[in-house]
Amino acid sequence: MAEALAGFRPERRTPAETVPLGEALNRVPAAPVTAPHALPGFARSTVDGYAVRAADTYGVSEGLPGYLDVAGVVSMGAQPGVTVGPGTVVSMPTGGMLPPGADAVVMIEYTQEVAPGTIEVVRPVAPGDGVVRADEDAAAGAELVPAGRPLRAQDLGMLAAAGVTRVAVHACPRVTIFSTGDEVVPPGTALLRPGQVRDATATALAALVTECGGAPDHGGIIPDDAGALEDALRAALTTSDVIVVSAGSSVGARDETAAAVARLGPPGIWCHGLAIKPGKPTLLAECAGVPVIGLPGNPRSALVVFRLIGMPLVRRVGGCTSPPAEPVVRARLERDLASATGRLDVVQVRVRDGVAAPLFGPSALLSILTAADGYVVVPEEATGLDRGAEVDVTLYR
Amino acid sequence: MAEALAGFRPERRTPAETVPLGEALNRVPAAPVTAPHALPGFARSTVDGYAVRAADTYGVSEGLPGYLDVAGVVSMGAQPGVTVGPGTVVSMPTGGMLPPGADAVVMIEYTQEVAPGTIEVVRPVAPGDGVVRADEDAAAGAELVPAGRPLRAQDLGMLAAAGVTRVAVHACPRVTIFSTGDEVVPPGTALLRPGQVRDATATALAALVTECGGAPDHGGIIPDDAGALEDALRAALTTSDVIVVSAGSSVGARDETAAAVARLGPPGIWCHGLAIKPGKPTLLAECAGVPVIGLPGNPRSALVVFRLIGMPLVRRVGGCTSPPAEPVVRARLERDLASATGRLDVVQVRVRDGVAAPLFGPSALLSILTAADGYVVVPEEATGLDRGAEVDVTLYR
Repeated sequence: MAEALAGFRPERRTPAETVPLGEALNRVPAAPVTAPHALPGFARSTVDGYAVRAADTYGVSEGLPGYLDVAGVVSMGAQPGVTVGPGTVVSMPTGGMLPPGADAVVMIEYTQEVAPGTIEVVRPVAPGDGVVRADEDAAAGAELVPAGRPLRAQDLGMLAAAGVTRVAVHACPRVTIFSTGDEVVPPGTALLRPGQVRDATATALAALVTECGGAPDHGGIIPDDAGALEDALRAALTTSDVIVVSAGSSVGARDETAAAVARLGPPGIWCHGLAIKPGKPTLLAECAGVPVIGLPGNPRSALVVFRLIGMPLVRRVGGCTSPPAEPVVRARLERDLASATGRLDVVQVRVRDGVAAPLFGPSALLSILTAADGYVVVPEEATGLDRGAEVDVTLYR
Repeated sequence: MAEALAGFRPERRTPAETVPLGEALNRVPAAPVTAPHALPGFARSTVDGYAVRAADTYGVSEGLPGYLDVAGVVSMGAQPGVTVGPGTVVSMPTGGMLPPGADAVVMIEYTQEVAPGTIEVVRPVAPGDGVVRADEDAAAGAELVPAGRPLRAQDLGMLAAAGVTRVAVHACPRVTIFSTGDEVVPPGTALLRPGQVRDATATALAALVTECGGAPDHGGIIPDDAGALEDALRAALTTSDVIVVSAGSSVGARDETAAAVARLGPPGIWCHGLAIKPGKPTLLAECAGVPVIGLPGNPRSALVVFRLIGMPLVRRVGGCTSPPAEPVVRARLERDLASATGRLDVVQVRVRDGVAAPLFGPSALLSILTAADGYVVVPEEATGLDRGAEVDVTLYR
């Protein structure tokens, strides 16, 4: 698994496209965005008070106030019409533009109007006090957001402040999802014939693709027929950035998937079989520049593997170099977990009051996943974990 | 803060609407969804092998194999055409329907074809081995997904398996966002006049609303004029589930917002001022059944408060009773953090190698937020945190 995660690194990246700021949340900038000009662009007051020359307040105190003349008022959003000279101040709202001549703002709390047009000041200020510099939020040309990190709410705010209303981001990777199996029918099938099951995997995979920034595309259900699968995959190569196949779960069906993928083109199959449980029959390939993931037929195994291998891959193809953190909680194991050395085990758990209770059952059961709050990874080098051991549970959300 | 979080509980909830499964990720079910029939609906094999009567394998071993006749083959997705009688088996693919008469499936690994139509079995199975029962994933009428918890990928898979292709969810709360201030201009304003700033807050707030499942609606920029603000708010009451106003940051502008909100209708202002830094001038109100949040004028303060107070509120209005976990990481503080008792402090931090470095600066600076990886909350009862203290950092994503 470690080898697969580190070694399977298709180079495909989606191209850049330009989107308006209102649609850019979680999108991945294709290049750093820099400030077209300094921000805020002018020296601003951070308090309600009086713009002053700091030197005029030196040495003042409650016992020995300084007296200064009010030369005017600054209005919000307007250029000050007055200048601050020696011995004078200008009344300032928070956020107002510092008038010429002033180098600080004294808070209104430390002043008092003692006569019309005259205030007393009881605390000294230093140059820069109560003021944000013209380039303090960003200098002209400074990086506002980096490339490769999904845009967060505050990043969008910063771009808006800079007047950047469109941003070049990687296109969402188009992920085509195929289901295979003669027994599989669409979820909308009202009445099942004996032996048929509805396609749960494609719907769940599409949701995971959306979660990691991809654009899912349903390729449909392909019968257990290597020719039909190969044709479908080949057609998808031209319209997909990633292809995902949930293979039939029987040995024969798995082999047919591998055979179809092998015929798609070079470099071909990278590995077939991973030391992970559930999820062993996973296939990783790259055909004609398109990464292809063959997932186990059991929905639960397929979803476990796609979370661990597929989602990071889709993010990378979409240009993401700083994937967002997942919620993880520490918990104590309610019971022993057995595991074979050299195999990574993914165990579904419920978490209550700091205790993680493992959920067991055949990997054919989806209810194990819907009952779980998250999962515990038993690493490859471990032979199991003891009851009471502290584990990290990655939480679903 | 604790009082505000526990006590400000507007009862508004959005109505239910029905959406297709493909659009239901992260949506909040308005009622539990139950299984219309048992799942998988028929007893299925979980392995490749032979359907048997378990009793026919009792006592077999490597040294003393049992010999059984192959009566036929089960195909995927089809009703078995054969019955398993005493001394006979039927060949089974993983996921195939168990034929009548069989009560277990022996794995192919523990069998060998010794003559055409005859296999030897070297391991005994118990009834139920290698089989998923007809109702093992869900009994008819069992709860598939609960109300109030946002739908996860696996939940959608389970619904698809059950043939539930449309689901009743709470409508996304419509959150109208107003900005106020004579100095504030739209982000698309190319050239600023002296003293003007572009509206960063509305764009960032809209992204946070989207993150917590709401549908943001830009109410626009209202000048510092209590009458204009009151008119705009009143009009929004009829089209909003939540109203958010980023107030002017000067004292006068804040008072005007409070006055406008107070005139909107009962029950009116719930609190004005919170023991939080940044974010003290926050206003919480409920007018004519619509929760109203007045945020501080500084973008950074506004975003901090909206994360802590606004997002949980929007989730509740949208019927969410089990909010998803946020990513939290433990880190050691790089330096002392001072804090006043009785006030909750939200400190932005960068996290590198397990060390959280606080980022300080005027709350007017958005760059503090864009540089941050997450934030640390210094609780109300604390007088500060020491350098080296272990803290929980809530990570942005």
